[in-house]
Amino acid sequence: MPQRLNTADTDFEARFAELLDGKRDASPDVGDRVRSIIAEIRSRGDAALLDLTRDLDKLDIAEASALRVDPVEIEKAWHEADAVTRSALETAHARIRSHHERQRPKDDRYTDDLGVELGSRWTPVESVGLYVPGGTASYPSSVLMNAVPAKVAGVKRIVMVAPARAGTLNPLVLAAAHLCGIDEIYRIGGAQAVAALAYGTETIAPVVKIVGPGNAYVAEAKRQVFGRVGIDMIAGPSEILVIADARNDPDWIAADLLSQAEHDTAAQSILITDTSGFADAVEAAVERQLETLPRMAVARESWSTNGAIIVTRSLDEAPALTDRIAPEHLEIATEEPEDLANRISNAGAIFLGRYTPEVIGDYVGGSNHVLPTSRSARFSSGLSVLDFVKRTSILKLGPDQLKALAPAAMELARVEDLAAHGRSVGIRVNLPADGER
Amino acid sequence: MPQRLNTADTDFEARFAELLDGKRDASPDVGDRVRSIIAEIRSRGDAALLDLTRDLDKLDIAEASALRVDPVEIEKAWHEADAVTRSALETAHARIRSHHERQRPKDDRYTDDLGVELGSRWTPVESVGLYVPGGTASYPSSVLMNAVPAKVAGVKRIVMVAPARAGTLNPLVLAAAHLCGIDEIYRIGGAQAVAALAYGTETIAPVVKIVGPGNAYVAEAKRQVFGRVGIDMIAGPSEILVIADARNDPDWIAADLLSQAEHDTAAQSILITDTSGFADAVEAAVERQLETLPRMAVARESWSTNGAIIVTRSLDEAPALTDRIAPEHLEIATEEPEDLANRISNAGAIFLGRYTPEVIGDYVGGSNHVLPTSRSARFSSGLSVLDFVKRTSILKLGPDQLKALAPAAMELARVEDLAAHGRSVGIRVNLPADGER
Repeated sequence: MPQRLNTADTDFEARFAELLDGKRDASPDVGDRVRSIIAEIRSRGDAALLDLTRDLDKLDIAEASALRVDPVEIEKAWHEADAVTRSALETAHARIRSHHERQRPKDDRYTDDLGVELGSRWTPVESVGLYVPGGTASYPSSVLMNAVPAKVAGVKRIVMVAPARAGTLNPLVLAAAHLCGIDEIYRIGGAQAVAALAYGTETIAPVVKIVGPGNAYVAEAKRQVFGRVGIDMIAGPSEILVIADARNDPDWIAADLLSQAEHDTAAQSILITDTSGFADAVEAAVERQLETLPRMAVARESWSTNGAIIVTRSLDEAPALTDRIAPEHLEIATEEPEDLANRISNAGAIFLGRYTPEVIGDYVGGSNHVLPTSRSARFSSGLSVLDFVKRTSILKLGPDQLKALAPAAMELARVEDLAAHGRSVGIRVNLPADGER
Repeated sequence: MPQRLNTADTDFEARFAELLDGKRDASPDVGDRVRSIIAEIRSRGDAALLDLTRDLDKLDIAEASALRVDPVEIEKAWHEADAVTRSALETAHARIRSHHERQRPKDDRYTDDLGVELGSRWTPVESVGLYVPGGTASYPSSVLMNAVPAKVAGVKRIVMVAPARAGTLNPLVLAAAHLCGIDEIYRIGGAQAVAALAYGTETIAPVVKIVGPGNAYVAEAKRQVFGRVGIDMIAGPSEILVIADARNDPDWIAADLLSQAEHDTAAQSILITDTSGFADAVEAAVERQLETLPRMAVARESWSTNGAIIVTRSLDEAPALTDRIAPEHLEIATEEPEDLANRISNAGAIFLGRYTPEVIGDYVGGSNHVLPTSRSARFSSGLSVLDFVKRTSILKLGPDQLKALAPAAMELARVEDLAAHGRSVGIRVNLPADGER
C-alpha cells in the first residue's frame, strides 16, 4: 500500500518533508573497485579491456580488434528488424529530430555603443561516447534519445559501447544505432568501458564527453572520469507525479502510475488529487491492473514502498507541493491543465491534459526522455542539444575602445592588487599601472 | 625558463602531448575531512557552524544570528568606497549586465503537423549560494561575474558566504554585493559554508545551487553536495594562450602572459608564434617585466614551471594546436584574427586583435570571466545565464493526436517489454497492450 497524505492533516508538513527526504537510490559503494578498474585500463589498455570483459561480462574475445561490432552487423540488424518495429523507430526518430532541431543555439555577434564587438559562438563537442546498458535496461528508445541530440548538435564522432554478456547485443539497439547513423560500436560495458572511452586504448580513440545510463559501476566511473571528459547527469530511478481531478477515469491514471513503477523497485509514482474518493478508486485500479502485469513484482514493490497519494483540499495547493517534489515527469490531468502548469517551475517534463500519458514522451512525442531525477529538476534540465555544444565568448576592441575602458579596468586591477593585469592594459594606452608608478 | 617547443622538431608531438598531460593542480586529498565537516553541519546545524568558524576561521561569534552581515554594513561599504572605484564597478556591472541580458533563453511553444503541442519553458532556479573566497583571492570582480547572471536569470534569492578571518570582510566585496542587490551575506567559509548552504541550518535557509571559486576544501565540498544541490564547474588554475605574429610589440605580449601568471604558481601561460626571434624577444621582455612586478615570485614560478613557447612553421598550425590545448583564455594578436578564430572550436573566450588584452574580459568587457579550465573548454562553457535557469519540456496531445501516435508508442513499449507503458497509451484509445492480449 502506498502512503496516503492529506494536506488537511496536522502532521502533513512533517510527513511530506519525510517523503521528500526519502532515499530511494541505495547505490552500493563501488568507488575503490571502479578506481582500480580505471587504473588498469589506463596502464594496460586493450589487454586490460579484454581481461575485464572476460572476467566481468563472461565474454572471451581473443583480439582487441574483435571488440568492435562489424558495421555490416549493425546494418543487418536494421534490415532484419520487423517492419512494424522499424516504422515505429522511424516515427520516433523523425519526431525527436525535428523537436531537437529547434534547440540548436544561435550564435550572437554585435557591436555596442562604444564600438566594442562582443559575441557568443557555439560549436559541437568533437566526440561523444554513448553508454547503453545490457540486460533488461537495453532500450532502443534510449539510443535515439541520446544519439539524436548529439547528431543535431553536429558531433562528428559518436561511439557506442554496450556489454554483450551472451556475446550478442540487443539487435534493436543495433538497429536504432544504424537509424541514428552510428557505426562505431564496441562490445564492452561497465566501468572498463567508461575508462576506455575517457582515456582511450590502442584500438579505441578517447572521446570528449560520455553520456547514457548505467548501473552503479557505470555511474561511479562517470563521476571519477569527470573533468578528464564531460559527462551528462547521473540518472536516478524514474519518477512520475500525476495531478488529477475526480473527472478522470481512475484506470487511466492507475495505468500511468504503473508505467513508471514497472521500471524499477526504486521508482516513485505519486498522485495528487483533491478528491479522496477518486484517490480510493485509483488505488483500487492499481491493485487490479497489477494482477495482469508481466513486471508485477517490480511494480508492486515500487508502488507499495515508494508510492504516495496526496489528497489536497484544492488543486490550488498542487503547484507549491509539485515545486518541492520537483518530479522528473509531471502529468496534469485536468480540464485546464495550463493554469496549474504555469504556476509550476520545477519539473523535468510536463504532460498536459487527459490525453497525454507520460509514455508518449518516452517514445514518440519528440521531446527527450532523459530527464532530471531525485529532485534535481530544481536546478537542471533534460538532455538536449545544449549538452553537446559549448560556447566561446568573443571580445574585440580597437585602440579607441581600449582607451575608453582602460581606466575602469585598471582601477579594478589596482584594487585587486593585480599589477600585471593593470600593466597589460596600461602598456597599450600609455597609462602607468599601479605598482609601476 | 619556460619550455620551448618547435613544431618542426621530430620530438614535437611527444613533447606537446606531455605539455597537455601535465598536472598543474595538485589538490590535496581532503575528502574525509570534508565528509566529516558536512556531517557535523547536518547533525548540529548552527552550533557546528559556530564551532567550525571559531576553529578554522579563528572567528569567535557567540550567537548564530551574528553570522549574518548587517545589511546596513553592506550599504555602508558601498558608500564608503572610493568614488573612482565605485565608478569602475558601475561600468563593469552595467556592461556585464547588458551582455548577459542577451543570453536569456527564449521559451518555445509550437504545434506540429499532427496537432501535437510541444514546448520548452525556462524558469530561474529558486535560490543560489555564492561562495567568495577570503584572503588575496577575494575579488569584487568575481562577485559581479557570479551574481549578475543569476540576477539576469531572475533568481529570487542570492546568498553570499565569505570567510572573515580577521572578523571583517573585504569592503569592496561587500560594495560589489550591494551593487548587485545582494543583502543576505554570512561571515562563513570553507566546507562548512558549503554544507550550510546545501543543507541549511536554523538560521540559514538552504539554497538550490552553489557557485563560486574556493580552495581545495570548498571544491571538494561542492563535489560532495552535488546532487543535493546544483554546482557550477570546479575551477582550476588560470590559463592563457596567446597566438601572436612577429608584428606585435613583445612587451605587450609579455604583459599579457604575466597577467595570468601572477594569479597562481599553478597558472599556465603559453605563447604560439611563427617567429623564433619574436619568441626570444617576448621571453626577454617577460624577464624584464618580472623585475618590477609586486607578485614577481608567483608569476616567475608559474612562468618557469608551467609556461611554454611554441614556435610554429606557420600560424596555420595554430588552430589545431589550440583545439588540443583548449585554453581558458585565447588571445589572437594578428592582423586578421578572425581567420584563425573561425578555425578554432575549443576555447573558453577569444580576444581578437592587438588591442584586446585578456584583462579587459576579466573586468569590463561584459563577457564572463568564469571560464572552463584544465582543457574542459572541449566540453563546457563559461558561466552564463543558462547556469541559473532550467528547462521544462511541455507536451500536449488531444484524442486525435494520441490515436495517431499510439501504434508507434505501443510497438516500442512492446519490444522493450514494458507492458504498463503500452497499457497507459492503449487504455485511452481502446487498443490492447502487449501482455494483455
